[in-house]
Amino acid sequence: MPYDLLIQDLLKFKSAKKIGTDKGLAKIGDAVVNLAYSVAKSMYLTKINSHNQVIRTGEKVNRKILSIALKNAKMKDIAKSRADAHDLADSVEALIAYIWLNDKMTLNEIIDVLTNNLTGNIYERAQEIQAATNAFTNLLNHVKKFITEN
Amino acid sequence: MPYDLLIQDLLKFKSAKKIGTDKGLAKIGDAVVNLAYSVAKSMYLTKINSHNQVIRTGEKVNRKILSIALKNAKMKDIAKSRADAHDLADSVEALIAYIWLNDKMTLNEIIDVLTNNLTGNIYERAQEIQAATNAFTNLLNHVKKFITEN
Repeated sequence: MPYDLLIQDLLKFKSAKKIGTDKGLAKIGDAVVNLAYSVAKSMYLTKINSHNQVIRTGEKVNRKILSIALKNAKMKDIAKSRADAHDLADSVEALIAYIWLNDKMTLNEIIDVLTNNLTGNIYERAQEIQAATNAFTNLLNHVKKFITEN
Repeated sequence: MPYDLLIQDLLKFKSAKKIGTDKGLAKIGDAVVNLAYSVAKSMYLTKINSHNQVIRTGEKVNRKILSIALKNAKMKDIAKSRADAHDLADSVEALIAYIWLNDKMTLNEIIDVLTNNLTGNIYERAQEIQAATNAFTNLLNHVKKFITEN
């Protein structure tokens, strides 16, 4: 990845907690997450559309969804101690940015994992929350192997 | 691009105005623009940092910057008539999403054009606005050739 300059300090420490608590990384990750989910949601809605319509949409992912996904994936330990939902969501975003900048997953791969894990009628808010939480949980389970714990 | 499904309707029309006025495309483009600028700004600040520090940051790009860039690039005609700054920024976002989904530029290429066109001390707000406007103007001049006019 041409941007591994941006994680050279983190590559030295190889600490999952340093990654999960890095605020700058979380900011980059916020943009990665929003782009990946926007494309995944658009792809899913377009594929299931019975009138062959193209659906394009952009969605800021709810922080609650990300925080629950981190708990589901049993990765709360990468967040700071006594983390609230906001901190947990930041950790998810930071981790996804790291995985992307470190070339462990391309953006296309991240999008595909999310797309393939969306199910149901996500036009209904409750169903979308359920589906998105499940999709991000699966993504986190998938990236778990790329970070070391200490 | 595996996501050209999302622009199959627009590919049929080949109309720059249809692209520039598509609200769903603008939503996806909002995420592309924010991610590209976040990485570009982080790369630029890290490269010029005299203490060899890594700077990671995420920045939502001001809509005013995008609207001025569209005017500078003389591409206002892709926006709707009587467009305000908000509409013009939407058109920039829609266009960048289209270029990316249509595989005319990769995300890395978009990031690199922005990074290479940032100059000056962008820690100062006025200088950042100037630099970012210039960088997006250059990006638009670069993508102009990929869209047909009608």
